[in-house]
Amino acid sequence: MTDITFTEINQLGEFGLIDHLSKKIKIYNDSSKKGIGDDCAVIDYGNDFQTVVSTDIFIDKVHFDLVYAPLKHLGYKVVVAGISDIYAMNAMAQQVLISFAVSNKFSVEMMDELYAGIIAACDHYQVDFVGGDTTTIEKGLVINVTAIGKAPKENIVYRNGAGKNELICVSGDLGGAYVGLLILEREKLIYLDNPEFVPKLDGYDYVLGKNLKPECRKDVVETLKILEIIPTSMIDISDGLSSEMIHLCSQSGVGCKIFEDKLPIDPSTYELAREFNLDPTTCMLNGGEDYELLFTIKQDDYEKVKNHPDFTVIGHTSDVENSFMLITKSGNEHPLKAQGWKVFGK
Amino acid sequence: MTDITFTEINQLGEFGLIDHLSKKIKIYNDSSKKGIGDDCAVIDYGNDFQTVVSTDIFIDKVHFDLVYAPLKHLGYKVVVAGISDIYAMNAMAQQVLISFAVSNKFSVEMMDELYAGIIAACDHYQVDFVGGDTTTIEKGLVINVTAIGKAPKENIVYRNGAGKNELICVSGDLGGAYVGLLILEREKLIYLDNPEFVPKLDGYDYVLGKNLKPECRKDVVETLKILEIIPTSMIDISDGLSSEMIHLCSQSGVGCKIFEDKLPIDPSTYELAREFNLDPTTCMLNGGEDYELLFTIKQDDYEKVKNHPDFTVIGHTSDVENSFMLITKSGNEHPLKAQGWKVFGK
Repeated sequence: MTDITFTEINQLGEFGLIDHLSKKIKIYNDSSKKGIGDDCAVIDYGNDFQTVVSTDIFIDKVHFDLVYAPLKHLGYKVVVAGISDIYAMNAMAQQVLISFAVSNKFSVEMMDELYAGIIAACDHYQVDFVGGDTTTIEKGLVINVTAIGKAPKENIVYRNGAGKNELICVSGDLGGAYVGLLILEREKLIYLDNPEFVPKLDGYDYVLGKNLKPECRKDVVETLKILEIIPTSMIDISDGLSSEMIHLCSQSGVGCKIFEDKLPIDPSTYELAREFNLDPTTCMLNGGEDYELLFTIKQDDYEKVKNHPDFTVIGHTSDVENSFMLITKSGNEHPLKAQGWKVFGK
Repeated sequence: MTDITFTEINQLGEFGLIDHLSKKIKIYNDSSKKGIGDDCAVIDYGNDFQTVVSTDIFIDKVHFDLVYAPLKHLGYKVVVAGISDIYAMNAMAQQVLISFAVSNKFSVEMMDELYAGIIAACDHYQVDFVGGDTTTIEKGLVINVTAIGKAPKENIVYRNGAGKNELICVSGDLGGAYVGLLILEREKLIYLDNPEFVPKLDGYDYVLGKNLKPECRKDVVETLKILEIIPTSMIDISDGLSSEMIHLCSQSGVGCKIFEDKLPIDPSTYELAREFNLDPTTCMLNGGEDYELLFTIKQDDYEKVKNHPDFTVIGHTSDVENSFMLITKSGNEHPLKAQGWKVFGK
């Protein structure tokens, strides 16, 4: 038994809780003119920028599971997932606003843990936590992250700009977060069956890290700038490569061919997929939450990316609309299917 | 029996649902460069504006009750509550992003109703619905509204700008939404006891409207501009006058005296409060969700507001920090208490 005491949120009240939690927040960007404490946050990007904004809602038992997701990691992850959309526009994330709905099972100390993760992510990505809302809910935990970023107008990259016969690139490697999830779910089942059981998580560091404390690709936006590449289209991979590839190509009015033997995978993801009797390619195509960036570039930019350690050219766009093809290692063509993670079962 | 058929959300899937719902969305503002359909919305306010942003989360059984809140009204209300924060900065709302988490009891037709209300509010306030997120939840309904607005830097009004011996003003009248809630709760209890019962809501139009389909005060921001008044501080009244008055004065480092006999109330709110054996003043001070604006102005601006039908001068600030006083009709002084609606019981 430990002698940790817990403080009920009721003891502080809504505004007391907000005061308590807000104390640790730092501001990194001059553009954040006013943070938490008024009706609104106030932002000023000056004359030469457009503003990009996205919002993402995360639900207990749908997007995360508190049985195995430590609250600090969860706080980190929701910020990463939120600002990943900003980088997917080739923009730089500057601010987040975060709403919470927490049940009365949550203590002030639990909120502190969640905030510690949020603040760690804000610190790492130099993003300002400028506003939010905190309320109660009958059961569980809901977190909504609104992310705001800036970019010069001419640098913003949309999903619908891919042309025909352009190169399709992806950052990092794929499938790790999904294989990490499989391990967490496996250990959870054993644990629920026998609470004495100590989960075996050694040796799974890479994939568990990809799932529990993922990073998003601010560095890719910085690298693209250095390489003087403005992608013709870009999207972040949150629902699996297949699903995002189809979004991007559909909106751009092009088809695609991607090559199985080009898909980037970490050796440990590969080995663990095999351990679960899964095809590693399926994990790369359909596993969610990788938060890598998928983008298209003109052929002229090939020399700039071809030996870059962060990027892999996985295929090319085609002029056949609605034809999204995977070329297998054996040379066969199979249509890609958006079998990524589906919240409504379709 | 009616022959209305319901479509399960699963039949459309997440992206099908978003496509279906997004079709009805119109764009009013040139600043909305990109709406729903990419990783982010893109906004451009040009050179002379700062951006204000707020986020609010609404939870079934905490902020609303689907037993008596029609979905269309609920959609309207969450937009109004969201953008009210923008007007409270003396700014003009331009965009909203809205996240939904809905249980599998929700049909596509129910989402259509909710969207109809959202779109009606966007239409009325000329605000663009530019992004969001839609997901599932085990039980109930969660809606998060992020509201974005613009104002010239010099026009933005914060909570902390009130000086000593300034006038305290409020728009419209108070307590109506709270009395409306009491009626809805009363009729709900009778209904739950006897489902054959038809709720008696005739004659309560004003207070029910204030609760179920409230309006926020875009017009006040426009009027202040015409009157050439920039308030020294401002806040919207969502948690009751007392609570907001204390926020505003605490942040400004001033005290206040407000006069019971000046507080504005609609005759029907007054009568109905009496029917419930409640003190109408208590309803005005502590009832939530009025979405009126509370602001301070310099004494020099008194002539501009004194006979204005939208504004009531209810008191003045004082130099006694942490002294928030109500002067009763009988001339006694009582400290104001923040007894507004508390989600965490304090």
